[in-house]
Amino acid sequence: MGIGIVRYEKEGIHWGVLDGGQIYPVQASEETLAAFLAADGKQRAEEAREHAQPFSQLEVTLLSPVTLPGQIVCQGANYSAHREEGGLDAKRPPFNMIFTKAPSSVTGPEHDIESPKSIELLDYEIELGLVFHKALTGPVADGEAALKHYVAGFVIGNDVSSRDLQFTENQWFKGKSLRTFCPVGPVLYLIDPEEAPLVHDLELTLKVNGEVRQQANTSQLLYKPEETLVELSGMMDFQPGDLLLTGTPGGVALKLQADEMNALLNPFEKLDKKVKMLNESQKDNPNYLKEGDVITCEIRTADGKIDLGRQENTVRFV
Amino acid sequence: MGIGIVRYEKEGIHWGVLDGGQIYPVQASEETLAAFLAADGKQRAEEAREHAQPFSQLEVTLLSPVTLPGQIVCQGANYSAHREEGGLDAKRPPFNMIFTKAPSSVTGPEHDIESPKSIELLDYEIELGLVFHKALTGPVADGEAALKHYVAGFVIGNDVSSRDLQFTENQWFKGKSLRTFCPVGPVLYLIDPEEAPLVHDLELTLKVNGEVRQQANTSQLLYKPEETLVELSGMMDFQPGDLLLTGTPGGVALKLQADEMNALLNPFEKLDKKVKMLNESQKDNPNYLKEGDVITCEIRTADGKIDLGRQENTVRFV
Repeated sequence: MGIGIVRYEKEGIHWGVLDGGQIYPVQASEETLAAFLAADGKQRAEEAREHAQPFSQLEVTLLSPVTLPGQIVCQGANYSAHREEGGLDAKRPPFNMIFTKAPSSVTGPEHDIESPKSIELLDYEIELGLVFHKALTGPVADGEAALKHYVAGFVIGNDVSSRDLQFTENQWFKGKSLRTFCPVGPVLYLIDPEEAPLVHDLELTLKVNGEVRQQANTSQLLYKPEETLVELSGMMDFQPGDLLLTGTPGGVALKLQADEMNALLNPFEKLDKKVKMLNESQKDNPNYLKEGDVITCEIRTADGKIDLGRQENTVRFV
Repeated sequence: MGIGIVRYEKEGIHWGVLDGGQIYPVQASEETLAAFLAADGKQRAEEAREHAQPFSQLEVTLLSPVTLPGQIVCQGANYSAHREEGGLDAKRPPFNMIFTKAPSSVTGPEHDIESPKSIELLDYEIELGLVFHKALTGPVADGEAALKHYVAGFVIGNDVSSRDLQFTENQWFKGKSLRTFCPVGPVLYLIDPEEAPLVHDLELTLKVNGEVRQQANTSQLLYKPEETLVELSGMMDFQPGDLLLTGTPGGVALKLQADEMNALLNPFEKLDKKVKMLNESQKDNPNYLKEGDVITCEIRTADGKIDLGRQENTVRFV
C-alpha cells in the first residue's frame, strides 16, 4: 500500500506523512524531493506512520512536496471538454501537445497566488501530476512497466494561466510560468507498483469560492500516462523529482469560439487588435479569478484509498 | 580580463582553460557548472592558465560546459532576417517570445547530432548563449547592472529544430528538445564586468559543410539581453548554470511564405494536410540537414578578444 507524504514548515522545513488530518514527522534532513526519495524516503515515511508521535496539520504550513531543481513538463488540451471550451476540436488530436512551466512557478498548497495587476484574464487548471522517482534517460517501450518503475507517485497541480499572455504571445511558456502560478501538493502519494493503474480512476474537483468549476475523472485523459511516458522517453530525459502535469479537464474560465481561437493564432494580426478581441470576447465572463478568490483543488479515488489532500490558494493581485 | 573555460574528457571529465589550441587543466572535481562557478572556478581557471602545464586540445574530447541540472530558456524570432524568412513581419515584434528546450537536449561541441529518421525537416540555429552565475530570484530594474552581476559569461548554442514537429504541433518544445538537439560550447567565456557590453558586438557564423549559412552580429538582436533580463526577472527565477539562448539570425533552412505560416498555425486545419503543405513548400529546399552534414559554429568579437571557440557537429539519422 502506498503512503501520502507532505513537506511542511514548523520551526524549519520537514518531511512528514499526512493521514487523517494528523502529521507524522519523518526523520529526514534532505532539502530536495529527489534526495528524499533516493534516501529511502518511502520506507522512512512508513516507519514514521508506525512509530512517530503525530500532531495536527493545523500546526504547520504545508509546502509543495515538489522542490527545485526540477522540470515541469505539461500536456496541453488533453481532455475533450477542455478542448471544446477553448475553441478546439473535442476529439483526441493527432499529437500529444507538450509545453513547460518554469520550475520557479511552483508554490505551496496554502500559499497565495500572486498575479501582476496587469493580468486581466487569470485562470485556473486543476491537473493530476506524476512525479518521477528514477531517472528516465532513454526510450522505453512498455508504458505500463514504465509507470510502475519510474513514477514515484501522484500529486495535485494547478496550472494557473494568464490567458492574456498565453494566447497573444503564441508560445505558452510565459503566460504559465509566473512565480506562484503552479501550486503543488499538499500530498505526494507514493504508490506501490500495483496501485499504478489507479492513475486512470482519480476524481478531480476544483472549486472557486466553494462553487464547483471543474469535475472530471482521469479516465477521460486523451493521451494516457503510459503512452505519454513511452513517447517522451524517446526524446528527452526526466530526473528524480521532475513533475509531469497531465492536462486539465473542462470548466476553466476561458471560453473561446473557434473563429476567435483562430484569430488569436494568426501571426499577422496586430497584437493590440488581438488583445482587444480577446478582452472583448471574455469581458462578460464572470469566471476569471478576482482578488480574494479562493481556489480549492482535490484529487482522490472514489473510495478514498488514494487521497492527494486539499489545495486552498487565495488569489492576490500585487 | 575574462577567461575561456572548457569541460573535456581525457581519462575522466575535467575543467580546463582553452587558449591558442592548448588546454590548461584546472584542479577541480566539481561535476556541475554551478558547483564549479560557486567554488571560485574563474579564479582557479586563471591560476591554471598561469601555472598549469598545457597540452594540445587534440588530445581530448570537448564537452558542453553547461551541465545538468539546469534550464534552457530561449528567445524566439529575435533577429529581423530570421523573422522574415519564417514568414513573419521583419520588424521588432511587440513582445519577447519565450520558449524552452529540455535540458537533456544539451550535447557537446564535437558530438554527433542524432535525429530520428522520421524527421524530414531538420534545421540549425546558431545562437549566443548567456550562462547565469548567481541565482536571480526577483525583479531587477537595471538591465546593465544585471548583466554584469548575474551573467557568468557567453557560450555558443545551436538550437537544432525539427520543423516538422515545431510547426505542426503548435508549441515548439517538442520539436526543439530531442536529445542532442542543443550542442553547447566548447568555450564558456567568463566575462569581467567591464566586458559585459561586448554582448552587443559578437559575430556569429554558421557553416554547413564549409558553406556559410548564417552570419550576423549580436548588435542586430531585437530584444537585447539587458531588457530580457529585466523582463524575465519579473516573472521567473534563474539558477547558477542556467542557459539563456538569445535567438537565431537569418539563414536557416526554413523558408516560409506568410500564408504558409498562417495555415500552419490554424488549429482547425487537419494535421495530415499541414504536414503535406509544409513538406510540399519545403521540398525543393536543399538546405535542410542531411546524413553526414557537418555544422560548424563560431562566435567571437571582430578583434578576437572574446572567442567562444568552434563547434563542429556531424548529423546522423539513427
